[in-house]
Amino acid sequence: MAKKEIVVGIDIGGTNTIFGFVDRGGNILAEDRLKTNHYEEIEVYVAALYEKIMVASHKIMEEVEIIGFGIGAPMGNINKGTIEYAAGLPWKGIVPLAEVFKRHTTLPVIVTNDANAAAVGEMIYGGAKGMKNFVVITLGTGLGSGFVIDGKLVYGQDGFAGEIGHTAIRPGPSNRECGCGRKGCLETYVSATGLKRSLLKIMADSIEPSDLRSYSFNELDAEIIHEAAKRGDYLAKRAFEHTGRMLGFKLADVVAHTNPEAIFLFGGLALAKDLIFEPAKEYMEENLLSIYKGKVKLLPSELSTQNAAVLGASSLIWTMKESNF
Amino acid sequence: MAKKEIVVGIDIGGTNTIFGFVDRGGNILAEDRLKTNHYEEIEVYVAALYEKIMVASHKIMEEVEIIGFGIGAPMGNINKGTIEYAAGLPWKGIVPLAEVFKRHTTLPVIVTNDANAAAVGEMIYGGAKGMKNFVVITLGTGLGSGFVIDGKLVYGQDGFAGEIGHTAIRPGPSNRECGCGRKGCLETYVSATGLKRSLLKIMADSIEPSDLRSYSFNELDAEIIHEAAKRGDYLAKRAFEHTGRMLGFKLADVVAHTNPEAIFLFGGLALAKDLIFEPAKEYMEENLLSIYKGKVKLLPSELSTQNAAVLGASSLIWTMKESNF
Repeated sequence: MAKKEIVVGIDIGGTNTIFGFVDRGGNILAEDRLKTNHYEEIEVYVAALYEKIMVASHKIMEEVEIIGFGIGAPMGNINKGTIEYAAGLPWKGIVPLAEVFKRHTTLPVIVTNDANAAAVGEMIYGGAKGMKNFVVITLGTGLGSGFVIDGKLVYGQDGFAGEIGHTAIRPGPSNRECGCGRKGCLETYVSATGLKRSLLKIMADSIEPSDLRSYSFNELDAEIIHEAAKRGDYLAKRAFEHTGRMLGFKLADVVAHTNPEAIFLFGGLALAKDLIFEPAKEYMEENLLSIYKGKVKLLPSELSTQNAAVLGASSLIWTMKESNF
Repeated sequence: MAKKEIVVGIDIGGTNTIFGFVDRGGNILAEDRLKTNHYEEIEVYVAALYEKIMVASHKIMEEVEIIGFGIGAPMGNINKGTIEYAAGLPWKGIVPLAEVFKRHTTLPVIVTNDANAAAVGEMIYGGAKGMKNFVVITLGTGLGSGFVIDGKLVYGQDGFAGEIGHTAIRPGPSNRECGCGRKGCLETYVSATGLKRSLLKIMADSIEPSDLRSYSFNELDAEIIHEAAKRGDYLAKRAFEHTGRMLGFKLADVVAHTNPEAIFLFGGLALAKDLIFEPAKEYMEENLLSIYKGKVKLLPSELSTQNAAVLGASSLIWTMKESNF
């Protein structure tokens, strides 16, 4: 009997790397992860990742055959197979990821931006099925984004289009510092880290009592703030509101630039539902030109938080196979 | 002998409407104009425009045959043939331009955004020949823009993509009022009118002497300020610098969104050359993420100020003819 073909989809995040064995139908047969930030050397990281994939594949190897590796990573460049100046990853400068990976395999390896991978995942397997013009925004430690226009992912001239996390929310040097070296990037406001930073400022300005006053910055995370907001904590609710408004303000720009049918929010912060969607929607609408008002859907991703990028990254290999073989 | 086929390209601006008879090679055989803002009723305007076109065509009618009308207008919608809520035009709300125009002719009539028309003109006849990813920004009374991605003009879901003039330069209610009803739009800073508004603010804050202090707001225009800047007028130079910086700040966002090979500036303000290009380039580069730095060309349009939109609008008909006939 012929073995079933599968692709290894890999999602490289600042904290974790998640990979899954994905069949043609988008089913993930097995999945595992390793800590991205434990590896300072890209060569050591790739070797550890490849070994972990091989170990995980061992159990299913009798039934399946790996046909390629699709990798999503922040600042991943599909043209060159590189990761370039990714602020949230341990490796600095331009990292030749595909090249290093290919020392371990002769199979095809494709690298792309993690949010672009999530957008492709949403298009093929999620809520954007059948849509031609939409945007996916991934809200994790940072903020990633991918644009689909006329049914195709937008790469631009150098493969770096669709990046809104590092556009500035306002000009001026007195703004929040970003890991990318700039100031006032959207990501410094709209991300799990941005939410924490906003909470601290609100806490400093206010005298409202809050359980959150007993947490250090390092102890806080989006989930703790989310739980507090659900209990009615004033500071936590204000932090979510501020985050949502900053997002909504920028989404008005995104709509004017790409005029999408829908914008999908994906990742940890999106799980806070109305706490983030309501102020984002309200402030987006408030800032939209009348021709766009009431036309753009702001929706939660229909893929579970961990699988969209894995599915999307794997689909790069399926697409390549169909067009080239 | 068969008559030469021509298209009437029409560029509707806030002040003037310009039309030209364009052949397949992009040559404008004849050209004329009428005052847009003299007509409060769209029906009366279209009737006057159509009549003027017929009169102008009379002289060349023995050699040529009109095969269609391509119209570029602010907020022109290619899907519906409408102009929708164009702040700078006399007609309010949704104007069924193509429908009104077709009361006069059975030939094809296509309406599009004027800046999109300019982008197509630049791609077919100007400096963007052979480019796949670029942006055209038209700087007139207002600010228009068109995005080309992967060789195709970006329309988006409802035909209104690529609009940067009405994205806000910063959040907040204390900003400059825009004709669109919002506050702080890029157009209120970066346009001939925006330049005047910036000049007034700078004049108010400064005690520097300047010839421009003897002009009223209504008397001032971009050309007067440009001439003053060339003479070394401090206030005029500061006004251009501010305009260029605001443009550059926003261009950094445009680059992050679309990752173009080049951005073309077109129209009156672009004629001020270094006065606008230098601060725009400098501030764009300063605000770019490292992956984009030094890669995006900021260029003047290679088409004369009045012809890009006429050429681009006419090319819509040629493209339609080639794909449908």
